[in-house]
Amino acid sequence: MPTPAIAPAVTPAAIDSAAVRLAGHIRVTPLLDIAASELGLPVDVVLKLELLQHVGSFKPRGAFNRVLAAGPIPDAGLVAASGGNHGAAVAFVARSLGHRAEVFVPSSSPAMKRDRIASLGATVHVVEGLYDDAQAAASAHQLNTGALAVHPYDHPDVVAGQGTVARELELQMAARGSEFDTVLVASGGGGFTAGQAAWFAGRKRVVAVEPETSQCLRAARSAGEPVDVSVSGVAADSLGAKKLGSVAWTIVEHFVADAITVSDDDIRAAQRLLWDRLRLVAEPGGATALAALHSGAYIPSPGERIVVVVCGSNCDPTTVVA
Amino acid sequence: MPTPAIAPAVTPAAIDSAAVRLAGHIRVTPLLDIAASELGLPVDVVLKLELLQHVGSFKPRGAFNRVLAAGPIPDAGLVAASGGNHGAAVAFVARSLGHRAEVFVPSSSPAMKRDRIASLGATVHVVEGLYDDAQAAASAHQLNTGALAVHPYDHPDVVAGQGTVARELELQMAARGSEFDTVLVASGGGGFTAGQAAWFAGRKRVVAVEPETSQCLRAARSAGEPVDVSVSGVAADSLGAKKLGSVAWTIVEHFVADAITVSDDDIRAAQRLLWDRLRLVAEPGGATALAALHSGAYIPSPGERIVVVVCGSNCDPTTVVA
Repeated sequence: MPTPAIAPAVTPAAIDSAAVRLAGHIRVTPLLDIAASELGLPVDVVLKLELLQHVGSFKPRGAFNRVLAAGPIPDAGLVAASGGNHGAAVAFVARSLGHRAEVFVPSSSPAMKRDRIASLGATVHVVEGLYDDAQAAASAHQLNTGALAVHPYDHPDVVAGQGTVARELELQMAARGSEFDTVLVASGGGGFTAGQAAWFAGRKRVVAVEPETSQCLRAARSAGEPVDVSVSGVAADSLGAKKLGSVAWTIVEHFVADAITVSDDDIRAAQRLLWDRLRLVAEPGGATALAALHSGAYIPSPGERIVVVVCGSNCDPTTVVA
Repeated sequence: MPTPAIAPAVTPAAIDSAAVRLAGHIRVTPLLDIAASELGLPVDVVLKLELLQHVGSFKPRGAFNRVLAAGPIPDAGLVAASGGNHGAAVAFVARSLGHRAEVFVPSSSPAMKRDRIASLGATVHVVEGLYDDAQAAASAHQLNTGALAVHPYDHPDVVAGQGTVARELELQMAARGSEFDTVLVASGGGGFTAGQAAWFAGRKRVVAVEPETSQCLRAARSAGEPVDVSVSGVAADSLGAKKLGSVAWTIVEHFVADAITVSDDDIRAAQRLLWDRLRLVAEPGGATALAALHSGAYIPSPGERIVVVVCGSNCDPTTVVA
């Protein structure tokens, strides 16, 4: 039976607090105005270039907020499971704040990404298997050592940190006197989507975009609660969560206006478009929100003013060249 | 004997007029604040991300202004010689404004760049030889057809168009209440450098950065007038001008505060840094200004507040990966 609706686990006030903590630790990422004709879109858009964030994705926002809100950090430092953007973010945060970090990565994760995490100063543990195996090893390490676990998405402080993107965006738009109605975001475990939705709390339309091949947010909306889904496709390394986070769900069920899907081909086309027209290298997950508009999966209402978050850049640039 | 100093050929008022013409045709490119530690620099910097301009460089600004200021355009359209960023810019401008464009490219220019120009709708003529041979063929075409010649740098309207970067930068900095002292720019034929220097007219320090292997601006300053230099190196495709433009010289001799050089290794290192830390793909010429700060070729004064223009992105992304 579906769980009954409960209050959102993250409030705008929590995101205000996160923004105070994050000041000086994260980059204010720029906006870029793009005319419809430039990208073959149905409407003009504003791009939020969060792919220019430290270590190439929004992930340091959530990780910094989790760590800075946690109080004194144990000598054992931070622990996380991730072969991708979150792992790099935790390593970056640990280095920035002077903590140790142990990052457990599945053996399925590319050597390039592991090397990146190690180059940021974290200790990398390669765990035979997939993400769940790495997560189990990270949990065991946490229990043994008392290290602070930094979950990639399912923690209120992580979600609040990601929500600072929405807050920053709204301030930037207000400073230039621009109005907007809708924010398109790529959705994986739901932490980023929930952060944006928690900030706007219905004042703007937040539209979640998932790959057809990994759509745990839509599955949760259908089932009335987070449920397991299968995961594959070109964006699986960043968006391939098997189940929407429980923290995210408390927000998503209230404040996500729409949830749509795009194909792997749509995602690749959006990556090529971003490179060809804007000279931006976006990873598949980073191009997924734009793919919804470019493919026609999301059809704007007349006059709808849209912001698209381009949220990650960590891929081999040879894969994005048209 | 050196020519005597003459009045600058481009005034701030001409750049104001250019900005009016260019409105709606060019992108307002974003700024990005970068802490010194992020890039291993001696000071914090603001990056002006002009590499996100249409067709990946600042060149459309000058080309648009040249064409829009020229009055009625002949049926023969536009003609230019360039295998690189200027050729793509002229093709883009012609397509945007509904004109024909004939672009003469030297056979030494990579097929990839020719294809880019052709894909923008221009007729590409491959001329056996180097840039001067293409320029001669373009001039002959201009004489035969009456097409409007769009020079890559040595025309007051081109220089004024490039100067809109400085104007836009100053407005953006004022809007956020930021002060700055110095703007570092890469310099080739001098059109971009002169545009920035003409706008600031001594109110800010404009520092020109040239590759060691093609330094026509420094040569002009030494000789007291533009003189021929030899040209080679990794940035030669965008910065490799044999002689500083005569229009540029009228401004450079008054308003360029300093002129320094960087090695090809410095440029490559700056490209890798921009990719590794910021996920920006900058071509060699686009990374040259940053290279001056990163390599130590430019040593800031205590408290000096610096803007670095990252001005071009057109290269094979595989060449920038560290």
